[in-house]
Amino acid sequence: MNKKQESVKWLAENFTEDEKKGFYKAIYSRRDVRSHFISKIIEDSVLSKILHAAHHAPSVGFSQPWNFILIKDIETKKKIKESFDEEKNRSSKLVEDPKRSKYLSFKLEGILESPVNLCVTYDPTKFGPFIIGRSSMPEAGLYSVCCAIQNLWLSARTEGIGLGWVSILSNKVLKETLDLPEHVVPVAYLCLGYVDEFAEKPDLETKGWLPRLELKDVVYFEKWNDKENKNWVGIKEMIKDNLNYA
Amino acid sequence: MNKKQESVKWLAENFTEDEKKGFYKAIYSRRDVRSHFISKIIEDSVLSKILHAAHHAPSVGFSQPWNFILIKDIETKKKIKESFDEEKNRSSKLVEDPKRSKYLSFKLEGILESPVNLCVTYDPTKFGPFIIGRSSMPEAGLYSVCCAIQNLWLSARTEGIGLGWVSILSNKVLKETLDLPEHVVPVAYLCLGYVDEFAEKPDLETKGWLPRLELKDVVYFEKWNDKENKNWVGIKEMIKDNLNYA
Repeated sequence: MNKKQESVKWLAENFTEDEKKGFYKAIYSRRDVRSHFISKIIEDSVLSKILHAAHHAPSVGFSQPWNFILIKDIETKKKIKESFDEEKNRSSKLVEDPKRSKYLSFKLEGILESPVNLCVTYDPTKFGPFIIGRSSMPEAGLYSVCCAIQNLWLSARTEGIGLGWVSILSNKVLKETLDLPEHVVPVAYLCLGYVDEFAEKPDLETKGWLPRLELKDVVYFEKWNDKENKNWVGIKEMIKDNLNYA
Repeated sequence: MNKKQESVKWLAENFTEDEKKGFYKAIYSRRDVRSHFISKIIEDSVLSKILHAAHHAPSVGFSQPWNFILIKDIETKKKIKESFDEEKNRSSKLVEDPKRSKYLSFKLEGILESPVNLCVTYDPTKFGPFIIGRSSMPEAGLYSVCCAIQNLWLSARTEGIGLGWVSILSNKVLKETLDLPEHVVPVAYLCLGYVDEFAEKPDLETKGWLPRLELKDVVYFEKWNDKENKNWVGIKEMIKDNLNYA
């Protein structure tokens, strides 16, 4: 059975417990990686798998509005790193010490250490102007690109590859550096590489910057802020324990 | 070994071939579902698993800016369905026949047939105003919510649950109906339920509305639109065949 036949067969099947375990392992062990990159090259076959996973994300009106720009040119990386340094410094002035010093001490990117950088962009003109589902919510195009990024991120994790999303940089610098047309939106700048470990928790949780919320604190019933609705007693009971997730 | 210990163990492990297969099965058999819902109730334990998976998405500065509003009230569903009908009709006027008739013939939501509707929202004030990584790119908060939605979508698929994202509706109606505060952004309105099948391809591909792009058409090297860069020959060769994805 070839790969194509296999993927068609999947549609009619339920997931076995082992298959579910593989999936949830990706969900719970994925991290935003800024260090621990090792020098091992990402094989073309693996990079291809990850890009294919991204490309099979959902998209509004099947518009597939994403592009993936693979980067290893050191001059590009240096320009983006410079922009990161500037923006980090600039934004640090928005908070007071001791938070400012703590913020400045964090390692928040792996632009130069990771073998592959990847910019994911949104092109609203693709297949346009009329895209099903985008007339009432134009932002749905951007949302599709984010779904592709999350597919990519999870796929990278299954392959042992760490991924870090750098959002501390100037989109203007990014657009100029990568020759993006005016209408194209850079959505994410990602750093990818094999790592020697995936951390047990998000760095910002470990360092006490912010706590993980409990699931029960982010779930409402029927209306905003309703946590007591009597028609949802079962699920309310179920999510009060934060350890039953996997 | 309890669930918590198991998830810690996962961090140090590579993925086995079977675990990878489980993960990629979710990626490639996930569909945007608008029909085929069956009446089977979603168990609280399953709904809880799906919400946990969503809550473990990455978020800018660990801000976890999402909320999940679970909906089964028929009055709410009817209001949202009305808004869908209005918006679909309104947007159909943006295209000419024969495209208009084709568009109007498509089944694009399962609001009333699906047992659970779910609105996912973005609250920019959570842990704010200073969120690491959001000063230079304020939109990163919204992007985090989209990553959570994609986790949720894939998790639903592994549990045999179809999910459809309805973006043909008025955010104004949505905000009023769900009592969202002014500052909270509704990002997605989702319909969830067990289904009797997952389609082989996206509906809009099957019906010839738009074709699936080939991966090679969305990947560039180093700069926008560069498809020939000599430093990326290996990956270029690898992605020219669209069937090697899984």
